[in-house]
Order: sequence, then C-alpha cells, then structure tokens
Amino acid sequence: MESSSALLPDLGTQIVIPVCAVIAIVFSLVQWLLVSRVKLSLENDVSDSVKNVQDAHGDYLIEEEEGINDQNVVETCVEIQNAISEGITSFLFTEYQYLGVFMVAFAILIFLFLGSVEGFSTKHQPCTYDKEKLCKPAVVTAIFSTLSFLLGAVTSVVSGFLGMKIATYANARTTLEARKGVGRAFIVAFRSGAVMGFFLAANGLLVLYITINLFKIYYGDDWEGLFEAITGYGLGGSSMALFGRVGGGIYTKAADVGADLVGKVDRNIPADDPRNPAVIADNVGDNVGDIAGMGSDLFGSYAESSCAALVVASISSFGITHDFTAMCYPLLISSMGILVCLITTLFATDFFEIKVAKEIEPSLKKQLVISTILMTLGIAIVTWTCVPSTFTIFNFGTQNVVKNWQLFLCVSVGLWAGLIIRIVTEYYTSNSYSPVQEVADSCRTGAATNVIFGLALGYKSVVIPIFAIAISIFVSFTFAAMYGVAVAALGMLSTIATGLAIDAYGPISDNAGGIAEMAAMSHRIRDRTDALDAAGNTTAAIGKGFAIGSAALVSFALFGAFVSRAGITIVDLLTPKVFIGLIVGAMLPYWFSAMTMKSVGIAALKMVEEVRWQFNTIPGIMDGHMKPDYATCVKISTDASFKEMIPPGALVMLTPLIVGVFFGFETLSGVLAGSLVSGLQIAISASNTGGAWDNANKYIEAGASAHARNLGPKGSEPHKAAVIGDTIGDPLKDTLGPSLNILIKLMAVESLVFAPFFAAHGGLLFKI
Amino acid sequence: MESSSALLPDLGTQIVIPVCAVIAIVFSLVQWLLVSRVKLSLENDVSDSVKNVQDAHGDYLIEEEEGINDQNVVETCVEIQNAISEGITSFLFTEYQYLGVFMVAFAILIFLFLGSVEGFSTKHQPCTYDKEKLCKPAVVTAIFSTLSFLLGAVTSVVSGFLGMKIATYANARTTLEARKGVGRAFIVAFRSGAVMGFFLAANGLLVLYITINLFKIYYGDDWEGLFEAITGYGLGGSSMALFGRVGGGIYTKAADVGADLVGKVDRNIPADDPRNPAVIADNVGDNVGDIAGMGSDLFGSYAESSCAALVVASISSFGITHDFTAMCYPLLISSMGILVCLITTLFATDFFEIKVAKEIEPSLKKQLVISTILMTLGIAIVTWTCVPSTFTIFNFGTQNVVKNWQLFLCVSVGLWAGLIIRIVTEYYTSNSYSPVQEVADSCRTGAATNVIFGLALGYKSVVIPIFAIAISIFVSFTFAAMYGVAVAALGMLSTIATGLAIDAYGPISDNAGGIAEMAAMSHRIRDRTDALDAAGNTTAAIGKGFAIGSAALVSFALFGAFVSRAGITIVDLLTPKVFIGLIVGAMLPYWFSAMTMKSVGIAALKMVEEVRWQFNTIPGIMDGHMKPDYATCVKISTDASFKEMIPPGALVMLTPLIVGVFFGFETLSGVLAGSLVSGLQIAISASNTGGAWDNANKYIEAGASAHARNLGPKGSEPHKAAVIGDTIGDPLKDTLGPSLNILIKLMAVESLVFAPFFAAHGGLLFKI
Repeated sequence: MESSSALLPDLGTQIVIPVCAVIAIVFSLVQWLLVSRVKLSLENDVSDSVKNVQDAHGDYLIEEEEGINDQNVVETCVEIQNAISEGITSFLFTEYQYLGVFMVAFAILIFLFLGSVEGFSTKHQPCTYDKEKLCKPAVVTAIFSTLSFLLGAVTSVVSGFLGMKIATYANARTTLEARKGVGRAFIVAFRSGAVMGFFLAANGLLVLYITINLFKIYYGDDWEGLFEAITGYGLGGSSMALFGRVGGGIYTKAADVGADLVGKVDRNIPADDPRNPAVIADNVGDNVGDIAGMGSDLFGSYAESSCAALVVASISSFGITHDFTAMCYPLLISSMGILVCLITTLFATDFFEIKVAKEIEPSLKKQLVISTILMTLGIAIVTWTCVPSTFTIFNFGTQNVVKNWQLFLCVSVGLWAGLIIRIVTEYYTSNSYSPVQEVADSCRTGAATNVIFGLALGYKSVVIPIFAIAISIFVSFTFAAMYGVAVAALGMLSTIATGLAIDAYGPISDNAGGIAEMAAMSHRIRDRTDALDAAGNTTAAIGKGFAIGSAALVSFALFGAFVSRAGITIVDLLTPKVFIGLIVGAMLPYWFSAMTMKSVGIAALKMVEEVRWQFNTIPGIMDGHMKPDYATCVKISTDASFKEMIPPGALVMLTPLIVGVFFGFETLSGVLAGSLVSGLQIAISASNTGGAWDNANKYIEAGASAHARNLGPKGSEPHKAAVIGDTIGDPLKDTLGPSLNILIKLMAVESLVFAPFFAAHGGLLFKI
Repeated sequence: MESSSALLPDLGTQIVIPVCAVIAIVFSLVQWLLVSRVKLSLENDVSDSVKNVQDAHGDYLIEEEEGINDQNVVETCVEIQNAISEGITSFLFTEYQYLGVFMVAFAILIFLFLGSVEGFSTKHQPCTYDKEKLCKPAVVTAIFSTLSFLLGAVTSVVSGFLGMKIATYANARTTLEARKGVGRAFIVAFRSGAVMGFFLAANGLLVLYITINLFKIYYGDDWEGLFEAITGYGLGGSSMALFGRVGGGIYTKAADVGADLVGKVDRNIPADDPRNPAVIADNVGDNVGDIAGMGSDLFGSYAESSCAALVVASISSFGITHDFTAMCYPLLISSMGILVCLITTLFATDFFEIKVAKEIEPSLKKQLVISTILMTLGIAIVTWTCVPSTFTIFNFGTQNVVKNWQLFLCVSVGLWAGLIIRIVTEYYTSNSYSPVQEVADSCRTGAATNVIFGLALGYKSVVIPIFAIAISIFVSFTFAAMYGVAVAALGMLSTIATGLAIDAYGPISDNAGGIAEMAAMSHRIRDRTDALDAAGNTTAAIGKGFAIGSAALVSFALFGAFVSRAGITIVDLLTPKVFIGLIVGAMLPYWFSAMTMKSVGIAALKMVEEVRWQFNTIPGIMDGHMKPDYATCVKISTDASFKEMIPPGALVMLTPLIVGVFFGFETLSGVLAGSLVSGLQIAISASNTGGAWDNANKYIEAGASAHARNLGPKGSEPHKAAVIGDTIGDPLKDTLGPSLNILIKLMAVESLVFAPFFAAHGGLLFKI
C-alpha cells in the first residue's frame, strides 16, 4: 500500500473547511444587505441614494418623465411582488406537505431495506472489503443512512426555499432600479443571485462536513461504514430535487404555455400583461422551476459527487490509512471553489461596471472564464497541499497507483469540460450567433420549418458537449478510476457559487420584466428589463446545459461507486442480463419524457380553458377595468403539478428498487448505464432546442438587425411561427431537460444507497 | 462436442431452398399478370371485365356519372403515371451513378483493408478458432468479401428498382379500379405489393444461396473463411439501403414539405392538386423513399441477420462438424417463411373479399396475425427436421449446449415480438384509437399543443416495443447466445414477403390518390383512394416500426458476430475505453438526425421558394390554364438529396473505420452498443410521432365522427394546426426514423466485415 502523507495537517483541514463555509455565508449576507438598500417605499434615503448615483454617474439619469417619485409605481410593484410571493409560498407549503410524507415513507423504506441486510442483527460484522476487520452492524448503518437521507432532503428544501425568498425579494427591486439604468438593475439582479449561490454552496458544504464529523463520533475508524451512511445525504438532496424539477417544471410551463396560448395568440396582448389571468401563475412558476428547482438540482449534484468520491476514497488508501485531510479532498476542493467564486464575483459587481445592455452577456461570460482560470490554480494548490504525492485508489477489485499531478488533471479536466459545455450551449442558444438566427430565418416559411430547424439544432448541439464529457471521463477514469470521475464532477461543480449566481440572475430578471409590464411602466424601462431578460434566457440555457453535463459525470461516478460498493468487478455487455438492462435503461428517459410532456400539455389545456373562460365571462377584463381572477390560475398550476409529478416520480424512484430486487446487480448496472447515455442526449437537445426557439422569438421581437426587422415586427407571420416554436420549447427546456438530469443522477445514487441490500437479497427472479 | 445429425439430408436442403425461391418468383409473376389485366387503354376487354364485375357484385356499381368510358380520364392517368415514372427513372439513374462510384471505391477499400491483414500474403494461415488447422489466405478472403459486397449491393439495387417499377405500374391501375369499387382497388394495390414482397424475398434468398455454393467450391471445408467472406453480402445490401433511405428520405420530404407549405398553407389548395408545381416531385418521392428505400432496407436486414447467424454457426458445432443442413438453418427458415406468406396472401386476395373501406385495416392486420400463427408452425417443422436435437453454439470463447426446442423458442420469440411491435405501432398511429384522437383533440389549442402531445405520444410508443425487443434478446441470448439472437431476428423477418406486400401497398395507394386528384376525378373516387391511403399511412408506420424493431435484433446479432469474430470475450463497461465508446455511440444518432433533419429543412425551403416563385410568375397557374413547371421541382429534390446524403452517409460509413483503426475493438464495441440502444429509441419515437400527426390530420379531414367534425372542417384553426404537425412529422417519419435503423445496422455489419483488420492493426492510438 503506497501512501505518503499530505502537507496540510488534519487539524488544518478541520479548520479550513468550516472557515470557508462561514466566509461564504458572510459574503452572502453582505450581498443581501447591499440589495436591501434598494427600498420599496418612498423614504428619504432612496432619494438620497438616487442623488448620489446621479452625482457619481452623470450618464445614468433617472428618467424623471417616468415619475420616479410616483408613489403609485412603487406601490404597484410592491403589490405585484407580494402576489407572486404569496403564490410561491402557498405552492411551497403545499409541496412541503407532499415532500414530508414522501420523506418519512422513503426514510422508513431505507431503514427497512438496509436494516434487513443482516437481518436487523445488532452484532458487528466482518467488513465488506477487509474481511479480517469488524465493522459496525448493518442495522446501525441503516439508521445513519436514514438520518443522512433526511438531512440531505432538509438541506435541499432549505436551499430552495431561501433561494426563492431572495429571488422574490429582488425582483421588484430590480424593476425599480431599472428606472435608474440598466447597469444598476443588473447589479441588483446579479447580487441577489450571488446571495443564493454562496449561501447554497456554503450550506451544502457545512452540513456535509458537520454530518461527517458527527457520524465519526460513532463510527470511529470504521470509515467504510461511515461513508456508506453518508451516501444517504446525496439521495436525500437529489430526491427533493426530482420533485422540485418535475413539479416545478410542470407548474411553470402549464402557466407559461397557457398564458401565451391565449394571451399572445388569441388576444394579441404582450407577455406579462396584467389583464392575463395566468400572469401571476407564470411569474410564480419562473421562481418555482428555475430558482428552487435549479438550486435543489445543483445542490443534489454537489452532494452526490462528494458522496461518490468519499465512498470510493473510503475503500482506497486514504480510507485504509485514515488520512483525514486526503479523505476530505472533495470538501477542500469545494472550499477552494467558494474562495475563487468570491473573487470572481467582485469582477462583476465591483471591478467593472455595466453601462449598456449589450455588455451584460459578455460580463456574465467573463464570470465563467475568470472563475475557471482561477479555479485551475486553486485546484493545484489544494492538490499539492492536501494529497500525498502518491496514493492508491480502489479500481473494481484492484488498487491503482495515482500521482498527485494526475489527480490535479482529473479535477481540472472536469472543470474545463464544464466551461466548454457552457460556451457551446451559449453558441447554440444565444441569438448573437448564426444557429439561432437560422432558426429565426426558417420562420419565414412557417411554424413547421421553425420546428424542424429547431429540433435539428438541438440534436446537433449535443455533439461537442458529449465529446467534452467523454474526454473528461476517459482522462479521469484512466488516471484514477472512479475516484477520478467523481473528482472530475466535483471540479466541474467547484465554481457552483458563480454558476448559481448567474443562473438565478435569469429568472430574477424575467420577473423584473414581468413586474415592469404589470405595473404599466414605460417602454424604455421595459426595454431595459428585456435586455436583462434576453441575457437571462441564454444564461438559463447555459445553466441547464451545465447542470446536465455535470449530472452526466456525477451519475457515472455514482454508477462507479455503486458498482464498487456492490463488489462487482465486471459489467459485461455480452451477457443478456446486462444488455437488456442497457436497452431498457435507454428507454426510461423516453417514458419519463412522455409522462412529463403530456402532463404539461394537459395542465396547459386546463389553463387555456380557464383563461379563455375568464376573458369571455368577466366583463371589462380586456380594458383593464376588472381584475382577472389570478388565484384560480395559480391553483390550476399547483394542483396539476402535484397530481402529475407522481407517475414520473414513481418511475424514477421505483425502477432501481424493482430492477435491483428482481433482476439483481448486473441488470441494474445496465439500466443505469443505458439511462445515463440516452437521457443525457435527450436532456441536452431538449434544453437547447427550447432555448433556441425562445431566443429566435426574442430575436424577431427585438428587431436589432436588418435581418431581424425583415422577419418582424410582432404579429407578422414569421413572428407567429416563432411564438409557436417558443411555446413548444417551453416544456422541452424547462420541464424535460432539467428533469431528465435528475433522473439519471437519482437512479444512480439510489442504487448506491441500496447496494448493500441488493448484494444481500437482490436478483430474486434469477435465484428461482 | 455434442452433436447429432438432422433429419433432412444435405441433398434435401440443396433442393428445398432454391425450389422455395423459384415458387416465390412464380407466385410473384402470377400476381403481376393479374395486376396487368387492368388495362390502361379503353379496349373492349376492359368493358368486358367491368361488365363481369357489375354482374357479380351488384352493389359495386361503376360510377357512370363519372364517365368511366371517358377516354380523357384514362389518358390523363396514363400521362401522370408516365410523368411520375420518368421522374423516378431519372432520379434512379442519377442515384446509380453515385452508388456505382461508391461501390467501386468501397470495394477497393474492403480489399485493401482485409488483404492487408496478413500483409497480402498468399500463404495459408492457421485458422482463427482452430489454430491447428490451416485456413485460406486472408488476401483471398478479402477478394471474396469484396465480391460478396458487390453482389449484395447489386441485389439490393435490383430489388429496389424492380419494386419501383411495379409500384409505378400499379398506381394508375389502382386509381382506375377505384372507379369500380374500393375492394377492387385494394386488390390491385395489394397484389402489386405482393409482387414486390415475394420477388424481393426470393431474390435475397436465392442470391445468397448461390453465392454460398459458389464460394464453397473454392473454400471446401474452410467454413470459417467461407462465411467470413459471405458477411460482405450483408454490408453491400445495407450500404445501398443507407443511400436509398437517406437520399430517398430527403428527396421525398423536401418535395412533400415544400408542396404542403405552399399548397395547403399559402394557397389553400388540396394535397396533390395538379396546379402545385411540386406535386409530381411529391409523388415521385413516395416511391423513391417508401418503396425503393424500404425494399433495400428490409433486404439489408434479411441479408445481415442471415450473415450474422451463419458466421456464428460456422464457428459452432454445425460449422466444425460440417453439418450443411443445420448450417443452412437460417436459409431454411426464410424458405419456410416464403411458403407461409404465400398461403397468407391468399387470405387477402382470394379467400375473403373487401367490400367497404373500413374493412381494409382489419384485413391487413389479419395478414400479420395469420402469417405469424402459421409461421410458428413452420418454424417448428424446420427446427425439428433440420437441426440435430442437441448441438453446441459458440458463446464468446466457450461453447453452449443448445437443444432444438430452445432454438425453436429463439426464432419464435423474435417472430412474435415482431407482431407485438406491429400491433403497438398500429395502436399509436392509427386514428381508430385514442392516442391519435387525443393528439387531434389538442389541435383545438393550436399547433404548439399538437406538437407537444405528438412528441409525448412518440416517446411513449417506445415503451412496449423496447420491452418486446428486450425479452426477445433475453430469451434468445440465454438459450443460444448470439446465434439465438441472430435467428430471433430471422424469425422476425421470416414473414418479410407479407410485410413488404403490406408496406408497398401504402405508397401505391398514396400515389393512386394523387393520380385521382390530378386527373380531376370525382370526390367519390377520391374518397375511396383516401380510405386506401389512410390505411396505407398506418401500414407505413407499422412497416417502419417493424423495420426498426428488426434492425435492433439484427444489429445486436451483428454486434455479437463482430465480437465473436474479433475474439473478444468480454466488453466491460467498467473500462474507460468502452464507456466513452458507449456515450459517444449514443450521441451519433443525434448527430445523424441533426444532419438529415436540417437537410430536409434546407431542401424544403428551396422547394418553397421555387413553388412560390412559379405561382407568382406563371400567369394562369392557379386557374389551371397553364401547366406548372414540374421538372424544376423534380430537379431541386434530386439535387438536394444527392448533395445532402453525403455527410450523414460519411458519418455512418467512416465512424466504425475511424474508431476501429484508432481506438480499437473495445471502444468500437461501446460505440456499436451505444448507437444501438440510443438510435433505436429515437427511430421508433420519430417514426410514430410522424405517423400520429399524419393520421391526426387525416382524422380531422375525414370528419368521420362527431368529435372529428367538431375539430374540422378543412381550413378550420384546429385543422391548420394539424397540418403544421403533419408537416413537421414528415421528415421525422420518412427521413429520420427509417434512416436511423440503417445507421445502427450498417455500423455493426461494417465492423463485422472489417473485424479481421481491426484485430490485426486496430487501436493505433492506444498502441502508441
């Protein structure tokens, strides 16, 4: 067993990790404070701060003709913000009731399954990998796994909840700041995103760190059992993300599609028009799906890749020699990531300044590039200080010798693959480049060609990301087996704070635009929020592409951890058990997609009927005399999302259990691999197709070039075709794509958690 | 080595196979004769036969008010038929020039690659599997492989060509018979399909049989080399099918989409209106894509599954003990299939009679059920007479003992899986069932919901076929390893004659309807051809679903043969080489889809521009005074299809070579498995989504139920939405779906042919 010790002493590790987490939380609070200085009432200090701004930047004049001091505008904004906030809270608390029931039920299931591995015996057992040593009883590990599952679930829910609170706190503030200039509005939206990003990153790290330390009190030197129990944390995080993504996705798109179909197509009123009864539901949906869903999703990925790395490490030399610092390498990478993101954020908020709208996209892109470059340095520092120069890693029954520079390459390749995926996604979904412009151009011949070109674009956008992922897997797998893949995933996720800040920026801007429209603010303000929103559309697509790409690495790492934990050394495609698993696994994402797409369709139809009914029966709704009944639309979306998320949720949660119990390990491995390689492609293509249609529509609407004006204006035949594409893309990009990445991760982490049970009692059908 | 001998003596086998093939050819000629009795001129015998009909079935009155004896109508039909026929011939001969160049170039490539395996040495070498024996030199096998490649290619081309000749011979005759009754028209269309089906099945069998016997003169007892050389036959057949499917698919859909976009949407004229300049190109396309393409495709599948079974058998006990009858088991199954289909056909043409339109679909379905039931009996007969009761089969380095009843189950499970796939496809694509009706219903809220529901339907339609395929693979693989899978594929394809007859019936009816419209025949005749066509749409979808399902089994069998031939015993997913192959392989169908979809889009845009230009510049085109310029539209489709088929063709043909040469066996195995499991799903879902949209549109247009009338009539908003879906579905069902199944087969068979080269010189990158 080759192993030398790391430079950083264990005590150092015990200090560095929590300190970084606390720094992130403090930074997050500071950002919040800065956002909160935009007041939602007309007190003196606002005028003061406004005056200061006016002094400092002569070119950012307050648009006095809009009546900045008009109490009405501010009040309307506050009113709308409250309506959105109420809709969210009502949705969330209903959701939490469902989730609570699920959590308890699933926790019991985990306990029963894992406890039964040794027949609920409380005796110590020989360890799985080192049969000469005694490990803690399976029933205790079952209890701790259940606990960490609950912890992961609660942390995920809290992350999503706080993210939403921030987002709804920021949306109206962004609108109000837009009156002062696009740069000011951008800063508010971006800072709010940063609050969420840093808080979430710190929260995930800190809870995991504390859990490990607490569990260690009981487990002591039995790290195998300790980190096996910790895997529940990933499962908890990801299962909440499933419901957040699927439920949230159905919610938001039922509202969005319903609102658009009647508003834009039937009634020819703009998006976010306050006369549209579904408008509040639509704005609620943006937060439910993109903020809470994305937060839970990336938290889940982060927790899972950490768990995968820790499990593999626990049965490698770090675990066997009890090298705590090296063992905590995944957490140290994340800690370093927080510091790097902190510096990166300053580039957006303090070092440079946005003056005109077209600087927004480059500024966000710069964030990604800067954080990647800095993080490469950060990885080097962590690797050379925390990991011995040579160590061994478990590789399906054998131990591989790994050098620290190889480990550095593993993490870095994941990090850079993430950047490539983001850049490619931007290329295919931003209307600054030719792919989206071609799609817009195809609207000349109607909706059919628009759809054909859009689908083709999505399919094509898969190519480079897949190569990037394949290369990352190849490099990291070759150097450090499954541990390499897990840390590559962590490398990709190491800049999660910045990534989330950018992601959250999108829906905040979208809401800000909605509020401006609903508060009947002037066109000039709406143009500013539109510019923020267009950049937000691209960043949303980028964020989704990135979430999917990281999910691929994470689920492959989890797959590896599962296989390791199950004691399998070969998954041979040339056996019928594995191959049928592969082919059925590759089908699951389609089945899942069918369910979610149809759910959105059905819910949207209901919404359309309600909205049409309101337009037809409530007099004065179109001329603004009467308020539409927003609450019914919110209720339709809420009910639909809860009812419709159960079948796809059950498909994802039950498949690994059924396959594992009845068909055993080999088939389950096939299913995981099949659903991973197939789901990944649909997820990327669906997400990018949807993003491209959205921006093709925005391209025609904005009319920024001669080509675009030739296709427009709003209401022209090409524009109508673009709206159809945009509407079809909604469920693809906001329901299907993001949900599928949870599918592939969640099935893998669930298999990992239940691996001991399958090893003991799985494959019933073949035993007969 | 356990092996007992078969009941049927070798001489019997040598007689039975060619006799069956000759019977099929005679049967095919008889059917042609019957079709040819419908005369395309107004001679006395027509009037006679018409009178007879009138006498025999009083209820099928000739529509005299339509002017049956009007020489003009008949002449117009002949004229249109000639125009279509000319378009096809011009397309085909241009295509053959391209194919000729490709064939020669690829033949040279095969010779060079395979010849270089032993450095073009003409000395005998130790055999691959039995090192103690001497086998024929690699360079000679290279020559024979090249020859069989050319034979396969030529047979495929001839099959497609004759199929088209038949189809264009039959289309106008079907139209003319429609004046006499729907049953009469059905018989003509179906008999013509049968001509193609039987001729093709016989042709494929006979050429393969003769080739084996000729090659045997040289190879003698070296069956390993003999059947290795025979694999070229499958490659030849399938590579022609690729160009037929991709080129034909682009051709037909460029014309169809272009014609519909201007005709139905801009000008509000019906499909197949003679005023539409793209109408001849559209009708040419139906034949090019669905007849020639489908013919080559299924011929390819048939040739490939036979080759896969023969290769595996040659290194199993049949080959080692030189049991010729058992060795020819795959060919005997096909021979039996021909006899079964012959009896089945009589059920459609002679035993029962179609009287009303709604009997058409059940009658076609009955064909499938009857042939499956009879064939099960046929398989039993062949298995118990031709195969020893116990024998051994090569299973990746070991030999499995197989009993004949197990082999019977392997073939039968494939056969029945084929029936299940067909029935499920019918359920999801026929407008008699709720899925398509739901899609039609979603048109109420516009094109966007139509597309969302249609995509969801396609995704869902994948589930049962995949389970059917997975179960077939599991059963056949478990019983008889890769030989089992290959014969399961053959079982599925054993009723190919009936399958092709039904498939060819579709485009013939489609053309017949087109001719009726163009010849300005009355609504009542058009209604009859529409009824034929609607059934044809469903059978086309069924045929595609079936082609895809059989391709899955075939390509898995080829994959197995490749792995066997390459001497691999394990394809371990837990190695980076294999896994990156898997993930990249799963991406290839998306890349390929992006190319072909965009090609159709671009070609359709050109077509739209041409058609619009003609409408705008040729005066009198809309009131029928001036003939549009059909030839230019034909040329646009022709040019587009040749130009655009090269990149996707290159992707498919070059990928196995590049991967094999640079990355070697393991990665190539991963690529094959990945593209199989992923491509299969897209192919099925694309094909069914397209079929469903087509029939949802037909459902609204036909207005046969209260629900349908509520959505219609033609020109209503829901109908417009349905037309958009129909148009989007065109490239999905007629370009993407059918081409993808070639992709998965062709890459596998190409790998198999080049396996000796990869074994000798592959994996350059990893050798460095």
